[in-house]
Order: sequence, then C-alpha cells, then structure tokens
Amino acid sequence: MNRRLFIQAAAATASATLLIAAQAQGTGTSGTKRHKIVIQMSDADPGKWNLALNNAKNLQDDVGATNVDIEIVAYGPGIGMLKLESPVASRVDDAVKAGVKVLACENTMRGQKLTKDDMNGAVGYVPAGVTEIMKKQAEGWAYLRP
Amino acid sequence: MNRRLFIQAAAATASATLLIAAQAQGTGTSGTKRHKIVIQMSDADPGKWNLALNNAKNLQDDVGATNVDIEIVAYGPGIGMLKLESPVASRVDDAVKAGVKVLACENTMRGQKLTKDDMNGAVGYVPAGVTEIMKKQAEGWAYLRP
Amino acid sequence: MNRRLFIQAAAATASATLLIAAQAQGTGTSGTKRHKIVIQMSDADPGKWNLALNNAKNLQDDVGATNVDIEIVAYGPGIGMLKLESPVASRVDDAVKAGVKVLACENTMRGQKLTKDDMNGAVGYVPAGVTEIMKKQAEGWAYLRP
Repeated sequence: MNRRLFIQAAAATASATLLIAAQAQGTGTSGTKRHKIVIQMSDADPGKWNLALNNAKNLQDDVGATNVDIEIVAYGPGIGMLKLESPVASRVDDAVKAGVKVLACENTMRGQKLTKDDMNGAVGYVPAGVTEIMKKQAEGWAYLRP
Repeated sequence: MNRRLFIQAAAATASATLLIAAQAQGTGTSGTKRHKIVIQMSDADPGKWNLALNNAKNLQDDVGATNVDIEIVAYGPGIGMLKLESPVASRVDDAVKAGVKVLACENTMRGQKLTKDDMNGAVGYVPAGVTEIMKKQAEGWAYLRP
Repeated sequence: MNRRLFIQAAAATASATLLIAAQAQGTGTSGTKRHKIVIQMSDADPGKWNLALNNAKNLQDDVGATNVDIEIVAYGPGIGMLKLESPVASRVDDAVKAGVKVLACENTMRGQKLTKDDMNGAVGYVPAGVTEIMKKQAEGWAYLRP
C-alpha cells in the first residue's frame, strides 16, 4: 500500500517537473517551439523601413506565417515609418494583413506632437516602445535591429 | 510513519523544484520579475548617445527606476560618449545619479591610448565591452542597440 | 525496505530535477557555461565589417577561442562582406581559421543573383539569415549587431 502510493506520487512529481522545465524553455509539452521575434525600428531612414518589412516577410515565407509571431516596434526617429503619409504605408498595411503586429510608441508620439489621426490606421500602440522591446525579450522573444 | 516521512519528503522535493524553475526563469519566488537591459553604444554619433540616454530615462520613467537594472556599455567607436569632454558628459552624470550603470571598455581604451584620466569620472569599467554584453544576455538581460 | 526504496527514488528524482533545470539554463552539469553569440551583419559598410571581425576576435581573446561559439550571419546589404572580392576577404578567412562560423544568406544571394562562385570559399550558407538569427537566440545565444 505504502509502496503503491509512493510510486504514484513519484510519477506525479516527475511529470510536474518535466512540465515546469518545458515551460521554462518556452516549449510546449509536445516539444514544438513557436517562433517569436520583435523587430526594432528606431531609424528615420526609409531604406531601413523597407529592410524591416523585408525581414518580416522573409521570416513568414521561411518558417510559415502561422508559425511565427512578429512584432515591429517603431519609436524615436523610427516613428515616421508608421505615419499616415509614410512612403512605406501600403507595405505596412500589407504586413498587418499578413499577421505582423506593428506598434507605435505613444511616448514618442507625445514628444513629436503626433495624434492617432496622424498615424497609419492599421497600426497598434504601446505606451513606451523601448519597454515593449525589453519585455518581449524577457518573455523569450528574439530581437532584431535591421 | 513511513507514510508521513514520504509525504514530508515529497513536499520538500516539490518546493525545491518550483524554486529551481523560478530561478531558471529569472523570477523571484514571489513571481515578480525584475527588468534588466543592457544598452550597447558602439557608434561615434552624438545623436545616438542622446538616444541611448533618452531610452534609459524613458525606461526608468515607464517602469520605475527601482524596478529596472540598466547598463550602458560603450566600446569601439562609441567610447567617445564617456570621455571627459563628451558633449553628453552632464547627461551621463545624470544617468549615473539616477542609477544607470555606465561602463567603458578597457580594450577599446587601450587601443585608443585612453586612460581613466581621459574619461568621465562617473563611469565604471569592464575589461571587454562585447564580452560584458554577451554575458548579460546569457544572464537573461534584454539587449538594446539604439 | 520501503524506506530504503523511498530514499533511493527521492534521490533519483532530485538528481533528475537538477539536471533538467541546468539544461533549461544552458549550463552543463559541471556548472560551467559555454558562451554563444550570433553577430548580425546587415550593413553595406566595410567599416562595420571590420568592427564585426574585431568584435569576434576580441571575444575569442577575452574568454578563449575554445570557450565561445561565434557565428557571423551576413544578409541583405551585408552580404557584400562575404563576396570573393570583399575588402575584408582575408580577415574573413582568418576568422574562419580561428573557429568563427561565417554564414551567407541564400535568400539574399538569390535576390542579388549571386552564386557560390561569387562568394568567399571559406564561408558557409543558411537558407535565410534572419531565421538563423532568430533561431540562435531561441537556443540561448546572445545577439550582437555591430
């Protein structure tokens, strides 16, 4: 009786241990790993904006759009990428339609006296771009600075 | 007796497991997570130096200065940021006073024949900036390249 | 008898737990941690190519070439670094000889109509540079963008 109880409990402890370890590694219990990457856009250079959008597209083409979470965070001098009149506005629209999350930094917008009316209607918002980038990495996301 | 001993030991094992898993994730046992970020400064551009200092300040304002460890590591062409006569010297002083760790790469200093007398008195030193940046990430710090 | 069985099993469970936690942290069971870093090269600037090679060399000098895995991934505008006629070709050769893995993005090569005959014979290849950089970080490698 004691022995059977012990074996059951030991098995339960071992299962829980494996589950916790898998979660610590960001893997599911099935062992598959979801790709996650945050792309920083803090440059005023439209060439860089195109590069960032190319990088996002290449990632989706390479691993499959449904297998990767991509977030582009624009802040500081990079905020222009997400303005209504941005030269890459239609490409930003396409990226959002393809499942890329594109986020503007509200801190930067306040500093540059921009409102949501000045911005591409497809984008989302975060209070502080740099905090978002830090938090995503802490949650296990990869980082890319084009 | 055997049963009571077993239950006590199983509980102890489970506690230890949870503690180890929490440490692997960089969280405390209370579940709160301390923010940690290393900011690379390897550009000779004073505009970038101001951006890096803005990023550090915004992070502190956003999550609270006591909740985030920030380290700015200057090396290669970025070392000029931390010289005595740097155009951002007073801002570097302010950052250090606000709790940001600002570190100069001694490798770079040797290469550029700089001594500590040439540097801002508020900064600290690391033997190799690039190694510091690598190690911090290995310890779970987020990375930012302004 | 039950008690001895229990103590043996509890010890085995504890060992397994520690091993799993060590693996989650990327450390060996001896407690030593191998350094790993992926260096992104996505700029067309030969000055940056030299910086990246300096960074790799400094890392090897600082922690010992046998203690660090370094991978330089060139893609987009950075692919020129790895061409046959690159101004840093001989330094790339030296880096590879010193144990640095240097990889060209085949996506970029297709886009720029480059074949392996156009490239430095010392380099290796990956299907997509940005995916390689993402995956390495997911495996616990540090990231550096010179």
